[in-house]
Amino acid sequence: MESLEQIGIKAKKASRYLAKLGIDEKNKALEAVADALTANAESIIAANEKDLVNAKANGMKPALIDRLTLDIKRINAMADGIRVLTGLEDPVGEVTGMKKRPNGLVIGTKRVPLGVVAIIYESRPNVTADAFGLTFKSGNACILRGGSDSINSNIAIADVIANALSDNGINPDVINLIKDTDRALVNQLMKMNDYIDVIIPRGGAGLIKNVVNNSTVPVIETGTGNCHVYVDEYADIDMAVKVIYNAKTSRIGVCNACESLVIHKAVAKQAIPLIVNALKEKNVEVRGDEYAMQCDSRIVPASDDDWGMEYLDYIISVKTVDSVDEAIEHINTYNTGHSESIITKDYNNANRFLDEIDAACVYVNASTRFSDGFEFGFGAEIGISTQKLHARGPMGLKALTTTKYVIYGEGQIRQ
Amino acid sequence: MESLEQIGIKAKKASRYLAKLGIDEKNKALEAVADALTANAESIIAANEKDLVNAKANGMKPALIDRLTLDIKRINAMADGIRVLTGLEDPVGEVTGMKKRPNGLVIGTKRVPLGVVAIIYESRPNVTADAFGLTFKSGNACILRGGSDSINSNIAIADVIANALSDNGINPDVINLIKDTDRALVNQLMKMNDYIDVIIPRGGAGLIKNVVNNSTVPVIETGTGNCHVYVDEYADIDMAVKVIYNAKTSRIGVCNACESLVIHKAVAKQAIPLIVNALKEKNVEVRGDEYAMQCDSRIVPASDDDWGMEYLDYIISVKTVDSVDEAIEHINTYNTGHSESIITKDYNNANRFLDEIDAACVYVNASTRFSDGFEFGFGAEIGISTQKLHARGPMGLKALTTTKYVIYGEGQIRQ
Repeated sequence: MESLEQIGIKAKKASRYLAKLGIDEKNKALEAVADALTANAESIIAANEKDLVNAKANGMKPALIDRLTLDIKRINAMADGIRVLTGLEDPVGEVTGMKKRPNGLVIGTKRVPLGVVAIIYESRPNVTADAFGLTFKSGNACILRGGSDSINSNIAIADVIANALSDNGINPDVINLIKDTDRALVNQLMKMNDYIDVIIPRGGAGLIKNVVNNSTVPVIETGTGNCHVYVDEYADIDMAVKVIYNAKTSRIGVCNACESLVIHKAVAKQAIPLIVNALKEKNVEVRGDEYAMQCDSRIVPASDDDWGMEYLDYIISVKTVDSVDEAIEHINTYNTGHSESIITKDYNNANRFLDEIDAACVYVNASTRFSDGFEFGFGAEIGISTQKLHARGPMGLKALTTTKYVIYGEGQIRQ
Repeated sequence: MESLEQIGIKAKKASRYLAKLGIDEKNKALEAVADALTANAESIIAANEKDLVNAKANGMKPALIDRLTLDIKRINAMADGIRVLTGLEDPVGEVTGMKKRPNGLVIGTKRVPLGVVAIIYESRPNVTADAFGLTFKSGNACILRGGSDSINSNIAIADVIANALSDNGINPDVINLIKDTDRALVNQLMKMNDYIDVIIPRGGAGLIKNVVNNSTVPVIETGTGNCHVYVDEYADIDMAVKVIYNAKTSRIGVCNACESLVIHKAVAKQAIPLIVNALKEKNVEVRGDEYAMQCDSRIVPASDDDWGMEYLDYIISVKTVDSVDEAIEHINTYNTGHSESIITKDYNNANRFLDEIDAACVYVNASTRFSDGFEFGFGAEIGISTQKLHARGPMGLKALTTTKYVIYGEGQIRQ
């Protein structure tokens, strides 16, 4: 089996090759890959079957078995995901801000691929195709390390992709799946600064934390979301009920779901029972502070731990406040920098919330559930960054690129 | 003495306060700080004297003693550096790309400060003032950790700054110098993800490597430069001689100095003796490959280690190549992603070099010495990033900011 270093060398070389490919060649290759995934669905499903047998024998939980399972519908969805990319603009090659300096040098900023992107993910075989598609379209070679429980599926998918590339005259080294499932390799991968430009972890909080804490390669952190909706004293209560119901219950396990309601005491007595009515339709457990419990007897006591919790479950916390200042202070203390929303009709409070909340996405009068690359119009999504460097919020193809300065001279030397 | 955690909490709080300050308030405060530095030059010099006495007793080398030394001229230069910032545009607050989505949500990207920026540096007390100025102007609170040899100077400078801020009604917690010189604190600082948004190491390769390898907080790597000048077969030889002489000898110890000459064999016999003539004026040692040595008897043999060396000294390596492809391949193998230049009159070779060289700054017909925030017209420089995330190349104030999405709704919920 190849060593990680051999894979790194191959990927680096392929990244230089890929950076030179034109948009038509890339789109044609993506079409071919999409077609090949559908055409080879049977063999992919057969490989997936092996993973499923092992997973069941190892007592994997049903929800994880479901994530691991591939069928013809899901393989077609993978292929469609690749096909969608062909319609998106190539982020690479644009030169901006070209300016002539007093000494005659002409300096511009050119958008270029990152180079080699490593993606570490859990046992979701669809990520293999998805990660390849996004990195390839943005001109990056990828190194993929999926969960060991999906290794047979991942190998099958990566082989189909590599063969389709080869058949279309594209160097298949642009996709590199690590086939050895030894856990120690992940640690080695995270130190390969000579060959890898960026690592993106895709998965749960534990996986992300491990990568952030141990990688010496720069990381793009995609993140956990302890998202708040703040119901201001000047809120449209009816709107507040609808937004909170949507943000909490429309999809429970996602990072842009609302985990905490913050509400001004001036409207708490009126609004809280209506909000709880709506949430109880979905049997949401509501945990509140003292005042919240006075507003509705169905609310159970929240502990201090609740304010920082990303439940990913039918649970919400309720914090009552005396002012928009207190709301902002509370949210800035406990949020994870993901998505926060204020419901208000007041111009100044809306502006203060937009200005002062420290998060990737700050909303006025809308559900936090819109934080998503597709909803933002990027046509694709690599993840939602909760860090402040490089990319913040939903990331499209551009987040997989960087820039370089190009400088045109006529023999200038520095004085 | 304050614990690091207490400093972190203070800095985070101050960063929220500072993010709200207007440009006029910030500029007025910077003016006051600059005036205070000049007015308190004597007490700063007295503190610096203590550091110098200790440094000499500890046998510090003369070059480092020089970096550590403050006099009235250097303090005025620090003050001027702060004053220059008042004339620069505030990078914070601009909203770009505001667009209406089909569902009526209006989404824009707002430029905001990073929050808390920690800067780890060596025993150069001027960095204390410089780092404060850059972070303050861009709306960030800073945590400063300078070399222990300059601790008295740093405390004096930071106290002058904090007092000047207080006197002007600005919360002095925006500047936080770590006064405890215990080395273990640096390791603790690099793990303070809850309070610090970004760490920037400023100093030599050892310091930077330590931070990159050990920080869990995102790092902006400013870097080492193994910069090349490639003399193409279609070069203007006269221009080549001048550019190489400038790039190698105009300042020896800087990251944008040329460390390696790559030259096409078609012009090597003609050009190398002229280049060596020029370099020998400054007694530069020239280490070359076999063919280079055949072109000029003053060239000594290079070992394989030479190709990757950042000498920061009067030494240069010379590699001869048969083609522009070989030149690009050699440079992409050994460069540090900093600055590379081609000397050529050929249109295609110029374009290929610009496209295919993987570095922050790629030049045609100019000295690599121009890679600098001031030369690029940014009016200030935090450092030169050799990483690909967030900022690449010379970094101005904008590199100390990030963005957030601001989203204006009318009660939208996600289907």
